[in-house]
Amino acid sequence: MAENVLSRPLDLLNSAKGKMVLVELKNGHAITGKLVAFDVHINVTLENAEEKKDADTLRKLGNVFIRGDTIILISPTI
Amino acid sequence: MAENVLSRPLDLLNSAKGKMVLVELKNGHAITGKLVAFDVHINVTLENAEEKKDADTLRKLGNVFIRGDTIILISPTI
Amino acid sequence: MAENVLSRPLDLLNSAKGKMVLVELKNGHAITGKLVAFDVHINVTLENAEEKKDADTLRKLGNVFIRGDTIILISPTI
Amino acid sequence: MAENVLSRPLDLLNSAKGKMVLVELKNGHAITGKLVAFDVHINVTLENAEEKKDADTLRKLGNVFIRGDTIILISPTI
Amino acid sequence: MAENVLSRPLDLLNSAKGKMVLVELKNGHAITGKLVAFDVHINVTLENAEEKKDADTLRKLGNVFIRGDTIILISPTI
Amino acid sequence: MAENVLSRPLDLLNSAKGKMVLVELKNGHAITGKLVAFDVHINVTLENAEEKKDADTLRKLGNVFIRGDTIILISPTI
Amino acid sequence: MAENVLSRPLDLLNSAKGKMVLVELKNGHAITGKLVAFDVHINVTLENAEEKKDADTLRKLGNVFIRGDTIILISPTI
Repeated sequence: MAENVLSRPLDLLNSAKGKMVLVELKNGHAITGKLVAFDVHINVTLENAEEKKDADTLRKLGNVFIRGDTIILISPTI
Repeated sequence: MAENVLSRPLDLLNSAKGKMVLVELKNGHAITGKLVAFDVHINVTLENAEEKKDADTLRKLGNVFIRGDTIILISPTI
Repeated sequence: MAENVLSRPLDLLNSAKGKMVLVELKNGHAITGKLVAFDVHINVTLENAEEKKDADTLRKLGNVFIRGDTIILISPTI
Repeated sequence: MAENVLSRPLDLLNSAKGKMVLVELKNGHAITGKLVAFDVHINVTLENAEEKKDADTLRKLGNVFIRGDTIILISPTI
Repeated sequence: MAENVLSRPLDLLNSAKGKMVLVELKNGHAITGKLVAFDVHINVTLENAEEKKDADTLRKLGNVFIRGDTIILISPTI
Repeated sequence: MAENVLSRPLDLLNSAKGKMVLVELKNGHAITGKLVAFDVHINVTLENAEEKKDADTLRKLGNVFIRGDTIILISPTI
Repeated sequence: MAENVLSRPLDLLNSAKGKMVLVELKNGHAITGKLVAFDVHINVTLENAEEKKDADTLRKLGNVFIRGDTIILISPTI
């Protein structure tokens, strides 16, 4: 990821569309899934999503809309 | 859900109208019900709604308006 | 409540004017009363309002203005 | 309080000017006093104000400016 | 303080300029000092300021800028 | 500091540029350092900064950007 | 870092692009990594990022997008 190529934070999210991501939430949970869409508020939608706490899967969510203001970070996972 | 079809996060909510959804709240509770309406603040209205904590139903709400800023995620449930 | 009739979240609040509602607050309390008015911030006014915690009435408030950003949900009660 | 007369939430605050009100704060305290002024942020000023926790008066404040975003509710008291 | 004279909440702050005020903060601390300036965000500057918790002075701050969104209330002290 | 000279809260920050300041954060920590810059959101940059909890230095930060919404107060020190 | 050279807080972030930074989060964790991009909301993207709590590495994140409103401070680390 060269700085001259990805010069804005949302570029990383754009390049992660269609890929698996980890989303950490402010309540200490994490959601993993395939990134489908995001907007400027960092609202995101994932598919094949699972909600996790530490190493445990709390529930399989499938398609999910996550409100941006509850998100700490988003990281593509390979 | 193909990315070229659903390219914005609100598209998922739009496609979930009239279907059963799970709404997770910041206070640790969840609301299930049929999605009737939403707006850009992610304010939503549900019908046949039930408020739950873990596996327990706290109360049957029927029609309910949920303020968007209290919502963590919304997931269609089959 | 048909989706084509109530297509925006605030429509539910509009149809609840003059009726008894349950207002859940972020501090874990609830207010019941007759819905008199609301605005786009979801500031609401109730009359004959009572503040409750779990099943107990904490105090009778009569007329009350509730600031929208402290509200989790609003549900008409029959 | 008829709905056609008081159709916006701020109408209740307007009608309470010059009267004693109870202001509940997000920190669990309450302020009582005579409502002098308010604005659209629900910033309010009271006179003869007292800060209370449960039934106890914490201190007499006299004139006080309360920032709107710290307020849960405002209720006229008789 | 007549209502027709002080009809907006900021009028109280304006009349308190140059006088000693008590500023209660959301973290449970209080700052006392002479009010020098404020703006519409309720950012304030004080001089001869002291930070207190309950009855104890935590530290003497002298001149201080307080960010408005951390303030619960401001009260002139005689 | 006369009121007619410093009539806006940001004037105090402007006069503190290049001087040592204490920045109290909402998480209970404090940062000390030389004030380099600030903006209207009260985002600030310091140099020779140290992060402290009570009397203890947690770490030396050197140059640091502090996001405004995490700041309680800023006070010039000497 | 002279004040006349870096007169706005974002200048520090701009000069830190391509360098290792420490990002402290409101949840008590820290992220270290190479700063790739930031915007006016202080949303940032890092590469080679690691999430830490105290001295322990919680996980290696690689590329990561961090939402600005969860950030306390950002400090370049040599």
